[in-house]
Amino acid sequence: VARDLARLETPALVLDGAILEANVHRMRARVERLGVRFRPHVKTHKCLEIARLAAGGASETSPITVSTLREADFFAAAGFTDVLYAVGLAPNKLDHVVALLRRGVDLKVLIDNLATARLLVAHARAAGVPIPVLIEIDCDGHRAGVRAGDPLLLELAAELARGQVELRGVLTHAGASYDCKGTEEIRAAAAAERDSVVQAAESLRAAGHPVSIVSVGSTPTAIFAPDLTGVTELRAGVFPFFDLVMHGLGVCRLEELALSVLTSVIGHQPEKGWALVDAGWMALSRDRGTSTQQVDQGYGRVCDLAGRPLHDWVVSATNQEHGIVTSRAGAPLSPESLPVGTLLRILPNHACATAAQHDRYHVVRGATAIEEVWPRFRGW
Amino acid sequence: VARDLARLETPALVLDGAILEANVHRMRARVERLGVRFRPHVKTHKCLEIARLAAGGASETSPITVSTLREADFFAAAGFTDVLYAVGLAPNKLDHVVALLRRGVDLKVLIDNLATARLLVAHARAAGVPIPVLIEIDCDGHRAGVRAGDPLLLELAAELARGQVELRGVLTHAGASYDCKGTEEIRAAAAAERDSVVQAAESLRAAGHPVSIVSVGSTPTAIFAPDLTGVTELRAGVFPFFDLVMHGLGVCRLEELALSVLTSVIGHQPEKGWALVDAGWMALSRDRGTSTQQVDQGYGRVCDLAGRPLHDWVVSATNQEHGIVTSRAGAPLSPESLPVGTLLRILPNHACATAAQHDRYHVVRGATAIEEVWPRFRGW
Repeated sequence: VARDLARLETPALVLDGAILEANVHRMRARVERLGVRFRPHVKTHKCLEIARLAAGGASETSPITVSTLREADFFAAAGFTDVLYAVGLAPNKLDHVVALLRRGVDLKVLIDNLATARLLVAHARAAGVPIPVLIEIDCDGHRAGVRAGDPLLLELAAELARGQVELRGVLTHAGASYDCKGTEEIRAAAAAERDSVVQAAESLRAAGHPVSIVSVGSTPTAIFAPDLTGVTELRAGVFPFFDLVMHGLGVCRLEELALSVLTSVIGHQPEKGWALVDAGWMALSRDRGTSTQQVDQGYGRVCDLAGRPLHDWVVSATNQEHGIVTSRAGAPLSPESLPVGTLLRILPNHACATAAQHDRYHVVRGATAIEEVWPRFRGW
Repeated sequence: VARDLARLETPALVLDGAILEANVHRMRARVERLGVRFRPHVKTHKCLEIARLAAGGASETSPITVSTLREADFFAAAGFTDVLYAVGLAPNKLDHVVALLRRGVDLKVLIDNLATARLLVAHARAAGVPIPVLIEIDCDGHRAGVRAGDPLLLELAAELARGQVELRGVLTHAGASYDCKGTEEIRAAAAAERDSVVQAAESLRAAGHPVSIVSVGSTPTAIFAPDLTGVTELRAGVFPFFDLVMHGLGVCRLEELALSVLTSVIGHQPEKGWALVDAGWMALSRDRGTSTQQVDQGYGRVCDLAGRPLHDWVVSATNQEHGIVTSRAGAPLSPESLPVGTLLRILPNHACATAAQHDRYHVVRGATAIEEVWPRFRGW
């Protein structure tokens, strides 16, 4: 096993543990100031070491959010038994949910429609297992959920009350905050996120339904929310790594990006001013999340081996295992400035998507020595 | 293990083995008519069962193309020892290359610049192992390689001749054929692909260099090439599966797409005419390859459980584990037409990218019974 980035075969995923820890520490301090419980999302990293860090290190019984039941299986087996599965439940996952509950996992599932509510009631009754449920609230029209003022909200709660289904509360996700232009818009999105779910919780309580969880979350709104009165918990996913999309939103500085893809220069097209590297979309992902932002970072921003951004260089095009590095302003790259074999680190547009292309993190700390290798998993 | 698609947890990758076999059979017959050796690319599927099928079933000693040394390791261990690594070599992979050669793998590497040629010569001499090499020819300006008429071609051959490096021949890839508008353009791209590499081979031979391999390939040009005189072998990758990009190019019919992602309807936004499904970019990939084609298929075309396309429905937006299904023409989808729990199959834009998001193929044959489960691997 290589002990230094300079000895790795490329491409490879690099994680700066010092930046990671600072990002986690800052978010935990922020959540504490907001006076809510923290339920970090594990979908970005899918890695036990990082989940432990995000949990504050002390305990594995702290709450987590998952995007797949595979994540629930894995982290519950490691002791994280307070799990929120934050994707609307598909009927074919009901048996898996019941199996997790029977193993003692406090798994909360999410619904936003009567069809699933009825299935849950029938399934919980047949299995003889109470199923904890949150109702998903749509705060910004961006994806799933019920509007806080929609009569369907109370119909859902009434339907759940018919069976062995425990309504635990409400959840929303300000997904549209990823498309905000600047921090003022993010602040407004955070207020709307909080207001929608607090209003929903109050409607349910007024109708006599129990609401112990009032859950909000997205990394941008988590960072700019001025106040979370009425909210009980906050979720966030990408904050341990950050990425170019978050940077473009004004959520983090470029120096706070913890994740990068190590790659080698493998050739040039001098007449075009291109350098070719061995990180294509397989290593970087196809994510082009900055393409609609003010600064389009292509498939990623190019840094030197130490992680310092180089000029205005980006990976402007990719094939499966090839990337083309160019200057954003069009200044040609020369074989002399970037010889074959040069190692580069590419900052990703979207850390969730890029990390998902890899099986492990090579952990460094502001240097090139590899201090640890942390596995990550995937699949459903 | 589920025996039928209707019993799987979603999302899951589905492969129709009957369509796969027909696609492979047609391509093999075509290559035979062209009178060249077939060296299928394994990067699309990364699966032993499919590599055996593409090899004609009889023998595992038939040639393959790989995009990573991990693929070389895996397939060589299974008996595929005639391997072409079709990505320009990075210096940090030299030790790995030598280890494969020492294990008896006839691994051919690719170069297009003097710096790598010199490194190869030095490394082969130091290791005492002859390294087989192809020179990459640039036939269409789309990526790497030397132009056939560039004096660098002969300089490279001369440099290689100085050491224990066996020049085996030349290779090109008509990558720009993926951007053709119609089959006439693809035919022209196939002719240019052949001409460039045959011209390069003739220059090298005229200068006294041995050239036993003259390699071309891309799925579009493989299908439309009228003649491959002077070429010795043909590579192609996506042909076993095909995909929406290939369909948009006129390379295959929609009924010839072998790969799809099984997903469940998990909710609706009736006012917007959306259905929500549990296949997001994690299951489908972020590939938007049809976005620049005449018909933009979003993140994939929506079919019923039997694999039949439904109206003009596409996955028009994705998050990590969510997809939004809409009508391309804007006709709203109703919860009545697509109830929660309905199983759908999504045809991918780009089969290489979508398959890479999964660990296994659930193999069916024109029905929903799962006949086999084939593993696939990934990584570097």
